[in-house]
Amino acid sequence: MSVAKEDVRSLAEAARAASRVLATAPTGQKDEALRAMARHLRGALPTLLAANEADMAAARTAGKGGAFLDRLLLDASRVEGMAQAVESVAGLKDPVGEVTEEWDRPNGLHVRKVRLPLGVVLMIYEARPNVTSDAAALCLKSGNAALLRGGSEAAHSNAAIASALAAGLTEAGLPAACIQPVPPGERETLLELLKLEGLIDLCIPRGGEGLIRFVAENARIPVVKHYKGVCHVYVHAAADLDMATRIAVNAKTSRPGVCNAAECLLVDRAVAERFLPQVGRELVARGVELRGDAATAQVLSRAGVPVTPASEEDWGREFLDLILAVRVVEGLDEALGHISRYGSEHTEAIVTSDEAVAGRFTREAQASAVAWNASTRFNDGGELGLGAEIGISTSRLHAFGPMGLRELTSQKYVILGQGQVR
Amino acid sequence: MSVAKEDVRSLAEAARAASRVLATAPTGQKDEALRAMARHLRGALPTLLAANEADMAAARTAGKGGAFLDRLLLDASRVEGMAQAVESVAGLKDPVGEVTEEWDRPNGLHVRKVRLPLGVVLMIYEARPNVTSDAAALCLKSGNAALLRGGSEAAHSNAAIASALAAGLTEAGLPAACIQPVPPGERETLLELLKLEGLIDLCIPRGGEGLIRFVAENARIPVVKHYKGVCHVYVHAAADLDMATRIAVNAKTSRPGVCNAAECLLVDRAVAERFLPQVGRELVARGVELRGDAATAQVLSRAGVPVTPASEEDWGREFLDLILAVRVVEGLDEALGHISRYGSEHTEAIVTSDEAVAGRFTREAQASAVAWNASTRFNDGGELGLGAEIGISTSRLHAFGPMGLRELTSQKYVILGQGQVR
Repeated sequence: MSVAKEDVRSLAEAARAASRVLATAPTGQKDEALRAMARHLRGALPTLLAANEADMAAARTAGKGGAFLDRLLLDASRVEGMAQAVESVAGLKDPVGEVTEEWDRPNGLHVRKVRLPLGVVLMIYEARPNVTSDAAALCLKSGNAALLRGGSEAAHSNAAIASALAAGLTEAGLPAACIQPVPPGERETLLELLKLEGLIDLCIPRGGEGLIRFVAENARIPVVKHYKGVCHVYVHAAADLDMATRIAVNAKTSRPGVCNAAECLLVDRAVAERFLPQVGRELVARGVELRGDAATAQVLSRAGVPVTPASEEDWGREFLDLILAVRVVEGLDEALGHISRYGSEHTEAIVTSDEAVAGRFTREAQASAVAWNASTRFNDGGELGLGAEIGISTSRLHAFGPMGLRELTSQKYVILGQGQVR
Repeated sequence: MSVAKEDVRSLAEAARAASRVLATAPTGQKDEALRAMARHLRGALPTLLAANEADMAAARTAGKGGAFLDRLLLDASRVEGMAQAVESVAGLKDPVGEVTEEWDRPNGLHVRKVRLPLGVVLMIYEARPNVTSDAAALCLKSGNAALLRGGSEAAHSNAAIASALAAGLTEAGLPAACIQPVPPGERETLLELLKLEGLIDLCIPRGGEGLIRFVAENARIPVVKHYKGVCHVYVHAAADLDMATRIAVNAKTSRPGVCNAAECLLVDRAVAERFLPQVGRELVARGVELRGDAATAQVLSRAGVPVTPASEEDWGREFLDLILAVRVVEGLDEALGHISRYGSEHTEAIVTSDEAVAGRFTREAQASAVAWNASTRFNDGGELGLGAEIGISTSRLHAFGPMGLRELTSQKYVILGQGQVR
């Protein structure tokens, strides 16, 4: 299952060649390939389950925990979900060739900005096998060849998924090298991949902070980073407190293990006395551990709501669990200051009925998405209407926030003249 | 004039702090600063000329050539040009806060994409002092703090220019750290700068290929590369040959030392016999040396037009001089193949009256700009209507082609709700 350095380069060269074909493939052919890929995923169900069982057995032997095993597991319903996700990408608008703007110049030149694929995209990810088919579908539709390097723990599953996808590509007359799994191997082969400037146009690492830092520190190719989400909900003095409770509870508890879940609640002092017991009781009833600053602890203790004292490490921490840091602030400036210091530029939410305050917050809070009177959980490609996402970028270059099909493209200028010279 | 590693980090930290102020500075204040910067540049003329004379004297002593000295030289008219360029940026539309798209979701959420600054931009460049004021103006207007690291040969000039710019910033009430020169120093200080992930959001290297490769290979921060321009003019069988001559001559000779000048002419065999002598005579009359493949050499020699045989190294070469490689091709596919192999993704032009052929060429030629019946020289921020440019990107990530004010921004999602939760 490992791979030599020279083989890594060959994979990338094959991807580059395939990307040239894919860049100008008609939408109909790409959609046909996506539907064929979905069919082959369904048809390969027994093979996929057997491959996955090999990975699961190895993971159990290695003593992996329940959450890890759950991420790794494939069953009939998950494979059907993967197939449906691939099919749904066929229904999304093809971004390639889209004219995003056009204008005339005084000398009669007509200028268009036209979307084109990036070229070759390298996904580096960990245990979830569905990332293989999701990323492949999005790359294919956006005209990019994909190199998919999943975790070694999912190696059998990913190889089986990739075989099914390749069968679909071939059926639609596209090169199988449009989607290639990179067998997980030594760190050196990953390092070699990350150096292939000119062959790989973009690297998207998804996974734990350690993986992303390793990629960012060693890559010579462009990387769009998807770091952690330390999201805040700020309840302003002029908030509707029932709405604030609903939003805070949803942001923390609807899916605590994801990056757009809230990790910290900031509450204006003016409403702390009324709001904290109300929201605190709801959160505790859902099993949330509250870690409060001194002011929060005082109010909650007096109201009989269990709270533990927050330490400095609790601010800016991504718990990914039913734990919420809570802090009382003096107002908007202190809330923005806290977010600037401890936030991760992922998602920030304010609850207020004051439009001017909301305007300042949405302008000044540094994050890929800022929500006014809505849950942080809406920072998601599907929820925002992008159709699907390959990840959520927390760095500003190229794409900030959810990356859908359009974020997997670039734009070139097309200049239409009648013989103009300078 | 050199700088220690810890000082480099302090500069970047000051830039980061200034960028937070600048990110939400009103357009009026930024424009006032730009106009004040222009005034201070004009007012500092004697100081600028004296500083420049120190650089010029050192360059002469070091035996630098005429082209180098010309790039380095400041005189009254060049300083006035710099001031006017800074003022003109005040007249451009502020990209920050621009709503580029908005839509409603079925659950009632209203979503906006809003432009915001990137943060801190590091320019690394060589001898031209005007890059200091040009880049500073574009970064300021787009809300980015700028770190400007010019070449050591222009150190006195750049320091004097930066002082004038700082005076303008202060007059408008903006932090002087919005624009900071990085004193040129040891390679180690440049390496240190390139590692400041989290403090610097984008690095734009402009200069020779060696500089850009050094930056690309050593940076841990995002880099938008501005590599060489190996631009082709392809004259298709259905071209208006007089138009083709005008375009080829203009693309090669109007300014041979720039990146959007043509370096290679591709001519369909069907028109080679008629076209090559015509364009060859015009080019030779303007002092161009022609380096032709065998077919070209045969046609030109027979017509009495001087030509030298092209070697393999002449394809894909950036001459930046009055030299043109010329090759006869069998048609569109061979032309696209040549460009795919030897082009630099900068600018490609086709001359043809066949719309279907032009359509394929503009779709399939891999370049940041593709021109149909127009000179390659139009791939320029000013010519395309962007107002000004900080460089021309030849990599697809974030920006491809000329980078104007908008390309110095990112976009965030603003989600407006009425209490929505998931």
